[in-house]
Amino acid sequence: MPHLRHLAVHTATTKPLSLAECADLYPAAGVGGITVWRDALEETDPATAGRQLREAGLEVVSLCRGGFFPAPAESERRAAIDDNRRTIDEAAALGAPVLVLVCGAVPGQPLSESRQQITDGIAAILPHAEANDVKLAIEPLHPMYADDRSAINTMAQANEICDQLNSPLLGIAADVYHVWWDPDLETQIKYAGENGYLFAFHICDWLTPTNHLLTDRGLMGEGCIDIKKIRSWVEAAGFQGFHEVEIFSELWWATDQREYLEAIVQAYKEHC
Amino acid sequence: MPHLRHLAVHTATTKPLSLAECADLYPAAGVGGITVWRDALEETDPATAGRQLREAGLEVVSLCRGGFFPAPAESERRAAIDDNRRTIDEAAALGAPVLVLVCGAVPGQPLSESRQQITDGIAAILPHAEANDVKLAIEPLHPMYADDRSAINTMAQANEICDQLNSPLLGIAADVYHVWWDPDLETQIKYAGENGYLFAFHICDWLTPTNHLLTDRGLMGEGCIDIKKIRSWVEAAGFQGFHEVEIFSELWWATDQREYLEAIVQAYKEHC
Repeated sequence: MPHLRHLAVHTATTKPLSLAECADLYPAAGVGGITVWRDALEETDPATAGRQLREAGLEVVSLCRGGFFPAPAESERRAAIDDNRRTIDEAAALGAPVLVLVCGAVPGQPLSESRQQITDGIAAILPHAEANDVKLAIEPLHPMYADDRSAINTMAQANEICDQLNSPLLGIAADVYHVWWDPDLETQIKYAGENGYLFAFHICDWLTPTNHLLTDRGLMGEGCIDIKKIRSWVEAAGFQGFHEVEIFSELWWATDQREYLEAIVQAYKEHC
Repeated sequence: MPHLRHLAVHTATTKPLSLAECADLYPAAGVGGITVWRDALEETDPATAGRQLREAGLEVVSLCRGGFFPAPAESERRAAIDDNRRTIDEAAALGAPVLVLVCGAVPGQPLSESRQQITDGIAAILPHAEANDVKLAIEPLHPMYADDRSAINTMAQANEICDQLNSPLLGIAADVYHVWWDPDLETQIKYAGENGYLFAFHICDWLTPTNHLLTDRGLMGEGCIDIKKIRSWVEAAGFQGFHEVEIFSELWWATDQREYLEAIVQAYKEHC
């Protein structure tokens, strides 16, 4: 059974809650960490939000999310880079040590071209990340998001960019939902760990059937992912950070979020 | 522009049509080949169906589908093997040179275990395939089907099983929908071609957004897949067979199927 002190929850998991409600309910449920999505910062400036969350007893784990670098026009790519720099500022103000990157893709543009634009984009924002001491975590997304969300679809591809850009502030957010199917997963997690790339670990489950590509993810234990095994791999690779519950689920969002948080804690104890 | 004589259509693509209607409408639209799904054989025995299709001027390309080998209990796996032997009989009676295998997966069972059961299952039916001169084509499925449809999710994994079982009757059905995202695709197609594994080539498109995991596929040109490029790879690898249009789409199924066949021919000319 994992220690609860490693349990973090994403604000997107409990989307109906305001950030103030998260600050209230997460610690009450035993949750130790919080990853903040940018939409949760609409009503509070990042510095105030960070202070309030810490005062509530929560550790701020990450800010979600930057990225979306690829675009056909150079002006659009430059705008994306500027937006990512502002997001790094937000992460620094919030006191989030990590900014998660959903790297982007353009339907119809070759994935290899998008990957080059992603690499170039990350290279362009790395100095700003370094100046602000904010780590950047590439999140490989499941291949079903290769059309318009990310051209980085495996740990191997994320490792490759980390190798290429070679910065202590560039690493990976490994999410079981995206990578569980990968026959090369254990090897690539080991490689990431050996090279200091494992910055974040996200958990949820894959439902059978999955009724929506984006918003039908499962609570741990509801699906087919062997989370314990993948957790054992990331820990064997040296990862000691939070286990972040990131679930997009219309079904769970429609429930009482206080009871949902209890279900999350219970599922975490049983299935992670 | 591809020659129409390479154009085949799956009965599942025009699901509202009976097999007799397919025999009537496909040749009228200029379609040269047909891949028959087993549900289309419910009203006609395979031998009669095959004769009628050939008399209508269609070449029978494949029978879809066998597979689904993995199961927790040995008795279930044995039943799957028996069912696959019967499906080989159907393919032989139909006069289909190829039986397509959707290999199967069991939610929660390790994918590596399922892959072993798949390999064992194919090994068990290969002698029957050889006795009937029916080729078996492993169809790698997109990783979003790794939970319950197939533990074979890349060309590399299919190549591996072909290498292992080493039979001239075992090869691969490459479907652009399932493999387009794979960074290793060109290499693996080349490898499959060099080893004589390329038995079938399926085409359709990936829609953005995709609203259903199974039945929201696009007509060629409606989505983001560079079909021409992948076709150039399979042809460079020596493939000279049919380009089979396999589209599961509630939207297209709801249209006039005669007009849909015209749209298929037009899309094939323009985007493949």
